[in-house]
Amino acid sequence: MPAHEHRVEALLADMSIGEKLAQLVGVWLNVNRDEGVVAPLQDSMQGEEVAFEAFARDGVGHITRHFGTRPVDPEQASATLAARQRWLRDHTRLGIPAIAHEECLTGLAAWRATTYPAPPAWGASFDAGLVAEMGRRIGAGMRALGVHQGLSPVLDVIRDQRWGRVEECISEDPYAVATIGAAYVRGLQSAGVIATLKHFVGYSNSRAGRNLAPVHAGAREVADTLLFPFEVAVRDARAGSVMNSYAEIDGIPIAADEHYLTRILREEWGFEGTVVADYFAVAFLHTLHAVASDAEDAAVQALTAGIDVELPTGVAYLELARAVAEGRIDEALIDRALRRVLRQKAELGLLDDDYEPVPSGPVDLDDPESRDLARRLAEESVVLLANDGVLPLGDVVGRRVAVVGPNAGSVAALFGCYSFVNHVLPHFPEAEAGIAAPTLLDALRAELPGAILETERGTGVDDGDRSGIAAAARLAAGSDVAILVLGDRSGLFGRGTSGEGCDVETLDLPGAQQELADAVLATGTPTVVVLMTGRAYAVPGLLANAAAVVQAYFPGEEGAGAIARVLSGAVNPSGRLPMSMPRATAGQPYSYLHPRLGAAGSVSNLDPAPVLSFGHGLSYTRFSYADLTADETVAAGEPIRCSVVVRNDGDRAGAEVVQVYASDRIASVTRPLAQLVGYARVELEPGQSARAEFEVPARLLSFTGRDGRRVVEPGEVGLSVRRSVADVVDERTVLLTGPVHVFTGAEPRLTTVSVTSLLLTAN
Amino acid sequence: MPAHEHRVEALLADMSIGEKLAQLVGVWLNVNRDEGVVAPLQDSMQGEEVAFEAFARDGVGHITRHFGTRPVDPEQASATLAARQRWLRDHTRLGIPAIAHEECLTGLAAWRATTYPAPPAWGASFDAGLVAEMGRRIGAGMRALGVHQGLSPVLDVIRDQRWGRVEECISEDPYAVATIGAAYVRGLQSAGVIATLKHFVGYSNSRAGRNLAPVHAGAREVADTLLFPFEVAVRDARAGSVMNSYAEIDGIPIAADEHYLTRILREEWGFEGTVVADYFAVAFLHTLHAVASDAEDAAVQALTAGIDVELPTGVAYLELARAVAEGRIDEALIDRALRRVLRQKAELGLLDDDYEPVPSGPVDLDDPESRDLARRLAEESVVLLANDGVLPLGDVVGRRVAVVGPNAGSVAALFGCYSFVNHVLPHFPEAEAGIAAPTLLDALRAELPGAILETERGTGVDDGDRSGIAAAARLAAGSDVAILVLGDRSGLFGRGTSGEGCDVETLDLPGAQQELADAVLATGTPTVVVLMTGRAYAVPGLLANAAAVVQAYFPGEEGAGAIARVLSGAVNPSGRLPMSMPRATAGQPYSYLHPRLGAAGSVSNLDPAPVLSFGHGLSYTRFSYADLTADETVAAGEPIRCSVVVRNDGDRAGAEVVQVYASDRIASVTRPLAQLVGYARVELEPGQSARAEFEVPARLLSFTGRDGRRVVEPGEVGLSVRRSVADVVDERTVLLTGPVHVFTGAEPRLTTVSVTSLLLTAN
Repeated sequence: MPAHEHRVEALLADMSIGEKLAQLVGVWLNVNRDEGVVAPLQDSMQGEEVAFEAFARDGVGHITRHFGTRPVDPEQASATLAARQRWLRDHTRLGIPAIAHEECLTGLAAWRATTYPAPPAWGASFDAGLVAEMGRRIGAGMRALGVHQGLSPVLDVIRDQRWGRVEECISEDPYAVATIGAAYVRGLQSAGVIATLKHFVGYSNSRAGRNLAPVHAGAREVADTLLFPFEVAVRDARAGSVMNSYAEIDGIPIAADEHYLTRILREEWGFEGTVVADYFAVAFLHTLHAVASDAEDAAVQALTAGIDVELPTGVAYLELARAVAEGRIDEALIDRALRRVLRQKAELGLLDDDYEPVPSGPVDLDDPESRDLARRLAEESVVLLANDGVLPLGDVVGRRVAVVGPNAGSVAALFGCYSFVNHVLPHFPEAEAGIAAPTLLDALRAELPGAILETERGTGVDDGDRSGIAAAARLAAGSDVAILVLGDRSGLFGRGTSGEGCDVETLDLPGAQQELADAVLATGTPTVVVLMTGRAYAVPGLLANAAAVVQAYFPGEEGAGAIARVLSGAVNPSGRLPMSMPRATAGQPYSYLHPRLGAAGSVSNLDPAPVLSFGHGLSYTRFSYADLTADETVAAGEPIRCSVVVRNDGDRAGAEVVQVYASDRIASVTRPLAQLVGYARVELEPGQSARAEFEVPARLLSFTGRDGRRVVEPGEVGLSVRRSVADVVDERTVLLTGPVHVFTGAEPRLTTVSVTSLLLTAN
Repeated sequence: MPAHEHRVEALLADMSIGEKLAQLVGVWLNVNRDEGVVAPLQDSMQGEEVAFEAFARDGVGHITRHFGTRPVDPEQASATLAARQRWLRDHTRLGIPAIAHEECLTGLAAWRATTYPAPPAWGASFDAGLVAEMGRRIGAGMRALGVHQGLSPVLDVIRDQRWGRVEECISEDPYAVATIGAAYVRGLQSAGVIATLKHFVGYSNSRAGRNLAPVHAGAREVADTLLFPFEVAVRDARAGSVMNSYAEIDGIPIAADEHYLTRILREEWGFEGTVVADYFAVAFLHTLHAVASDAEDAAVQALTAGIDVELPTGVAYLELARAVAEGRIDEALIDRALRRVLRQKAELGLLDDDYEPVPSGPVDLDDPESRDLARRLAEESVVLLANDGVLPLGDVVGRRVAVVGPNAGSVAALFGCYSFVNHVLPHFPEAEAGIAAPTLLDALRAELPGAILETERGTGVDDGDRSGIAAAARLAAGSDVAILVLGDRSGLFGRGTSGEGCDVETLDLPGAQQELADAVLATGTPTVVVLMTGRAYAVPGLLANAAAVVQAYFPGEEGAGAIARVLSGAVNPSGRLPMSMPRATAGQPYSYLHPRLGAAGSVSNLDPAPVLSFGHGLSYTRFSYADLTADETVAAGEPIRCSVVVRNDGDRAGAEVVQVYASDRIASVTRPLAQLVGYARVELEPGQSARAEFEVPARLLSFTGRDGRRVVEPGEVGLSVRRSVADVVDERTVLLTGPVHVFTGAEPRLTTVSVTSLLLTAN
């Protein structure tokens, strides 16, 4: 037995039921539990220590969000966190410190910390390495503050653009989510911070895109599409924690579902970390799902299913003492969860005899290296959707540039809903922003110094105020070029046009923005549209009529400069769409992973095809492909090798995202027409070419067969290189030979990184 | 062995493989198979007999749609059908006549046959008895023509209002679909015509409401909601045939799914009739679902799963000869299907030695009794959604009545997509209509003889022509009351705004109709809106601003008079909404059968609540309820008795639909907040009251438990009387006592007719 295990077992043997349960809950003071939502902490910290010491006299498992709910200097907060840890060490019987956790999706959700681009931008970059580096830097800052666990990344696969939390997700494609999400996990954990995979599982698939609505999905869809990123992050990236989804799938709430939380996650995937509850999810088994008769019953069901820690605070799990005393649950289930928590604390050093909280001291959470990383990721993630040649702007000295639209002069427009700026600061209007982020207007002024740059807001994001549209159109009419900056304002719980609880019924741009766009476009002035959005809106008219359209999602604190440099030409755009751009205002849910049924040729007057497909993105240079090779015959269950040469035929350097798709031509269950199985971001000088070699793991060709087993069937598979899923460059047919390959679960890892080499040829 | 069985076995033993397979396919001449859709038969019947004899030399299982694809006199067509049957009897080796089948959803789809209201109107009537009578009359006409099988009813439960085939469905509630659908089956089959349940199963639940798109649903949702009407129609109404759904559910096409077609349908429910393929569905396993490698493979899979007869014609099943010869399928599977077909032919008398086709002769398919039935059903189905007192119109002698809108003067507006008028006649513009149906304008002229009635169309249904809106508004402005007749034009394959293939992206009224409505309402003239639609549109503005709104769906050939009489007051409206009226233009899919999660109080800024709920409908009189009683304690698995007194408190006769809902307060899986478990249509004179007694079968309280078994759990169930699902009058709590009741499948029938008595008290 390793030393950690001895320590854990010795502790466990010595603990009262109260001390045990204390380790299975978080403490979050001054939070409004009744509404089941997070109310802002308006009060000062006065009195908090008293409350903390009262709650934590038996110890406590987690300290919840010590940094992320008010604008307090992180160094000061770090000092109070350290004081609480010392108090736990010195004033509880067993002296066990807590795990401190925080939100950290686009950077640590704390005042004055770097805010990186939001997950759709990670997806657009197709650069897992850079995302890993971001994770590592986020983790380093957290570690310096004494935070042990980050409640990221979100591995939900995008299924419905109406959902407000699309902006927290990486992609519509499970392989992209898996590889980029796993990179985040590796990065964060390399800094010694536990990553938390969420929301396990199904959350993104809620009915009609409404947040917290039930999920209508079959077991195969869950297994083949929604679980995959979690499996990769658990098996390949060794994520330390998983958070349950609030969802109920086909009538069973995940928080009470042993199938997913224990049989799949632990028995099949070998997960050994902790499962933490999404906030209030245990109590929701009673109050929202009505599968539990009271809080104690909810706790019994959640613990039995496999939730180890109740977050954000102890609402239901503390009731388990009575359940044990009265024989309604076996104390062994409490010990099962407790071992996982204590083991994690041991691994973090919290059980060491010489444990000391990290010293509080000078911490720069927004240092130049982090900002530089935020800049690079933003630059790589800007997607050029359409361009008639107006971009790059080139020489604009002395030319009149109109900068129009609600997001041009907005800092908030750069950030997602779990950023500190949009999550916390709106509740503290008196607080200074705590972050120095230029707006796109600022950045354009810096990037286009010789231009005559004038601006009109036109309308708000969603205020419907049309009073400024005419002035904006007049400005555009008198200008040489117009830059129209549209999109979302992200917020929580209905306070934004994107974000948690900010779901929409149609995919038209919010408010009067389409009217503003129509007015500006009607002037005839060449117009560049910049979209800072949390989701893919249906803007076929903009795509058809604007001179150029740029999709930037929420690009983070360095995002404005990144966009400005793409417009000027200083940066050659290289992002690719991580999600389809819908053609129509409805037609959701939609995923490019649909089978042949319901695609073109169906008996419906509706055409589900998006206006721009997953993977699309333009460049200022041109890439050509040649010499696609693939194995002609492979035994089912073996990887397939393929390669292709990509060449930069233009006159400037740029990056192409080489995309490989598989098409299972005939299978025993219906399969997507095409599915991404490999990608490689390739930077090429003018005239330079590279051969990208891929090894497509058999796991990516597998699916849940008729009998529920994971199989690869013999037969023909098309392997294609595409510029987007809808734009096939070339295809080869691979014959998989029999017999059917059945995955046993014993495969050591998924080997999902399919690029095996990139051989650059000098120009 | 009964005599039929002897005959079947003797025939079977004597048949070649070719003769066997011929019995498993239909023949449909001059149909464009390549496109997989039904092309109109523009040609004459010349040459058809030669083609028929060539195809049917080994016999044939079915003759497909002999009446329903061109305007030919039914008596003439009956004579040619009889000639073919005699040819089969006299010129094939075994002399087996064919089963002739036809569409008959809203009446036989033949020239000059009565067209009844469409299924949503049946649902709105909540009058299973009248629907049974309609079925009987439809069947009688078919029988007189020599048709043996009708491809109705549609038992798909409405799940998404965007789907064009909502107009073919009865209700959003499975109990309403089950009881009214089963009534249709009983009626049709009482006339000796085989009913065909469709589309088994899942078709209505297609992704984003697009016809023929895949179904994303879990096994529990399918079992508890979608299968229920089929189970009732099979087990209680003894339906003779079932048609597969084109759908694929969670990756498995129904046409290749033994689980539904054999294990559920036959082994669990005891179905002994035939399963027929939806048109081209067998070939679709190859061409649309890509689970079969060619037509032969498709045939093997479909036959194995349990499809007995390929319709409309032999595309794939004739390939089975080679499959048998080369050992790819066991001939016993062919014999299994063949026995079912031959047994059905024996029961129809087709194998009798003295078989003679029905004599062709005078047949009146639109006789006064049928028209009277169509009138009564239409009258009972009109739903008064809103009324500020303008209705009934009362004395309008000498008053100016403006009749406005695209559906006021339209015959086609009265009918659904499978009516002969909208299905076939558009292809034969030179043909006379073949039906004498007054438009609503005609009917209003007749019903309001003293009024000064003027009309303007305003705009077309979906042409977007705004040129007539101003004139319509002027007419309304100068009138005492305006009647604004809006809605759909039903058609097939994208040629309508409702109907098969006519799916929509938003639930705004088609074309410029909302603008017409806004213009008319802006005049301030009291306006009565009449909606003739195939689905529930989102018209919250009309509901709020019009003086009255009437929902009539497609009311059939007598529907215009029925609506006119409701407006005049000659008929007191008594229909109730069979489907929710959505508040917003999107928010689909939606069903009132949602659990607590995702309803009010969720973390979403979208409110899924409809503007008017399932079950809503007003009357010209007032009803009150009293003395709700219910069993206080019942063993789980036993029926629950309840009763309530309803009284007509107004001064005119009327009908109330008493609605009983169950709410399972806590269950092991999530359950709908409320679900209809009983209803009774009660006609009451002024001052009269009645006690409606219900026995709610345990089956209606059951669900698929965690382990997949159908159970009723102990615990509290609320039984409530409601005016609509959102309008609770009174509720009682029933305690179900343990243990858990598990359904074994051996229950003889579902006893779904829950009204046990109606005790009228004289006024």
